Amino acid sequence: MSSQLWPYITPGIPDDLFEQLPGIPLSKREVRLLLISALRLQPDSLLWDIGAGTGTISVETGLLCPKGQIIAVERDEEVANLIRRNCARFGVHNVQVIEGSAPECLKNLPQPPQRVCLEGGRQLKDILKEVWRYLQPSGRVVATASNLESLYALSEGFAELHARNIEVVQSAVNRLETRGNHQTFAAVNPIFILSGEKLD
Amino acid sequence: MSSQLWPYITPGIPDDLFEQLPGIPLSKREVRLLLISALRLQPDSLLWDIGAGTGTISVETGLLCPKGQIIAVERDEEVANLIRRNCARFGVHNVQVIEGSAPECLKNLPQPPQRVCLEGGRQLKDILKEVWRYLQPSGRVVATASNLESLYALSEGFAELHARNIEVVQSAVNRLETRGNHQTFAAVNPIFILSGEKLD
Amino acid sequence: MSSQLWPYITPGIPDDLFEQLPGIPLSKREVRLLLISALRLQPDSLLWDIGAGTGTISVETGLLCPKGQIIAVERDEEVANLIRRNCARFGVHNVQVIEGSAPECLKNLPQPPQRVCLEGGRQLKDILKEVWRYLQPSGRVVATASNLESLYALSEGFAELHARNIEVVQSAVNRLETRGNHQTFAAVNPIFILSGEKLD
Amino acid sequence: MSSQLWPYITPGIPDDLFEQLPGIPLSKREVRLLLISALRLQPDSLLWDIGAGTGTISVETGLLCPKGQIIAVERDEEVANLIRRNCARFGVHNVQVIEGSAPECLKNLPQPPQRVCLEGGRQLKDILKEVWRYLQPSGRVVATASNLESLYALSEGFAELHARNIEVVQSAVNRLETRGNHQTFAAVNPIFILSGEKLD
Repeated sequence: MSSQLWPYITPGIPDDLFEQLPGIPLSKREVRLLLISALRLQPDSLLWDIGAGTGTISVETGLLCPKGQIIAVERDEEVANLIRRNCARFGVHNVQVIEGSAPECLKNLPQPPQRVCLEGGRQLKDILKEVWRYLQPSGRVVATASNLESLYALSEGFAELHARNIEVVQSAVNRLETRGNHQTFAAVNPIFILSGEKLD
Repeated sequence: MSSQLWPYITPGIPDDLFEQLPGIPLSKREVRLLLISALRLQPDSLLWDIGAGTGTISVETGLLCPKGQIIAVERDEEVANLIRRNCARFGVHNVQVIEGSAPECLKNLPQPPQRVCLEGGRQLKDILKEVWRYLQPSGRVVATASNLESLYALSEGFAELHARNIEVVQSAVNRLETRGNHQTFAAVNPIFILSGEKLD
Repeated sequence: MSSQLWPYITPGIPDDLFEQLPGIPLSKREVRLLLISALRLQPDSLLWDIGAGTGTISVETGLLCPKGQIIAVERDEEVANLIRRNCARFGVHNVQVIEGSAPECLKNLPQPPQRVCLEGGRQLKDILKEVWRYLQPSGRVVATASNLESLYALSEGFAELHARNIEVVQSAVNRLETRGNHQTFAAVNPIFILSGEKLD
Repeated sequence: MSSQLWPYITPGIPDDLFEQLPGIPLSKREVRLLLISALRLQPDSLLWDIGAGTGTISVETGLLCPKGQIIAVERDEEVANLIRRNCARFGVHNVQVIEGSAPECLKNLPQPPQRVCLEGGRQLKDILKEVWRYLQPSGRVVATASNLESLYALSEGFAELHARNIEVVQSAVNRLETRGNHQTFAAVNPIFILSGEKLD
């Protein structure tokens, strides 16, 4: 898919190219790279992006998989519209934004996914388990945790689901940033990225 | 490009899928993701991969840019053959491996590059400056440093070349690894990734 | 306390000044600094050092608290002797090494502790809970985790014990190291350090 | 030295126990631990704390070395008073705050130092070299850098001065912090800590 704003085939769109709303989470570029890589997308993958926030994952995966289909789930109408605007901004046409609250709304989604990206949410373990029911065989779920509670919920959830090839990676990237007339190394807050595969 | 071993369109091939030789450097998966992203490849980019080592960047960029062309430069014959074998292993056909020592050999390369990946080398600053002469307008150079000396050489080099949009990112990822019958968080050694663009 | 080998009053003895045995864990200098700081020792503190390994914590706290008393608990006789030798090496006289297996052996220890350092052990949560019974009011426990399982056990344990002022810090330090004739930034493996206080 | 606010003999006073002024730098607790450790203080050390900022190093070293003497150099009067207030707050009596601008003011300092802590400053390399002239034999300088420019200046400076036992450590600590009603891992911005010793 060709975007005038991002004409590259490599993922990693700079954060500030996205429209942002105050208080709405955004997966930082460096974390996003690890997350997208862990998804192991195929050209025609069907991806659910749950708790899509600013829509950075939907935009990047939409660009990477022009023949794929992304369903972004977001409960807040204003945020759903933000995702839609970010897709339009990057010329992404294969993202469908559905307003709804996981896990309840998942049963209404049109098709079972091959890949699921799961970010945030208070009932993370419940969402993971519900998502898993719909996940196609050999499908993958990638989820992020920024605190111990989420880390436990996901880790236990994957174990109880007997997920295969469970991986846990912690991203801890530093960027040299310019602040006023001097530079400083700034740390991107560390995020745990967990992934697991469903048995055939 | 379709590979049976790695049928995914997202970068980030696990390190152990590559054939490796003892003592030959390999860009670790998480570092590679940042490096590839910083290259901002276009579908038909012409990339020089200098100091290609195990060939992980050549393989990944070859898969990402089936219409692109990658020239891997490696001075050691045995290592050059390792790169060739890794390309064959992943079904990558658009990588040409040239045996030679940078910066001397650069003048013999067939075409000026749009992108350059620069890893290691004792004369890093000289190589950077020579590479810059060949780099096409709007082209990008991405280079890695694992110690202070390389970091200085690259940072000074980019500054002296008046590179645009200089970025410095430090990767510091932790992986949960299984060792025997217990798990432990292991740190991937930190690498600095510097990138710069040539003025039009 | 004055040591010829380490005549300084600041903690942070270099790792290689300790006698080491293959396979016996050693708290790396940078992790040790965070751990000792979290203990908040008073000049006459009574400390239990459980799973003392190489004895680095016992030695450093022994030097810091010449009027304090440290009881190091270690189940393996050979390792207990290593701790004794390291104490002798640094001229530390206020460490008592007791051979025994926690949590069973704790009931035999001479005095209830004001501070406890807890590293490793398969029954980490059980040890934490048993230790807590003996801990004096306003006492502190500091424990380390190098994987998710230990992190959960400790975090849940502290919560169930209604520990006060629970803190979780993750150490992730990089050192510039010389290897052969070049230097490289090497990461010290990340360790989680958890601490909690007992209500008066 | 006994402080009611911090009655412990271990360094690592929480950041929020210090009085702070907006815009005035403060060495974060975890960075401070590495810095103080690298100073390798003796009970009666004479320390210069240059660019003392909030005064956290002066306070902690003052407490650690009741028989030692700390001279804090700070060019801004308001900040100098902040250091004085923080010393008073912790009952520290062996810190003398001198208003002046390094390197010019160094020649007026009463005694040559055995230890120097150097944080910030625009002419970091000049200050390092001037400090070195006054440093007593076997003395140590510990300096911090938060960006590439400072890192170069210090690294080159130490090399040109033929400092012995040069060490470079990068601190990269994550803290589990509570924000509103949820927790998140937050990264402390990475700081490079360089140290070197003067030949006898």
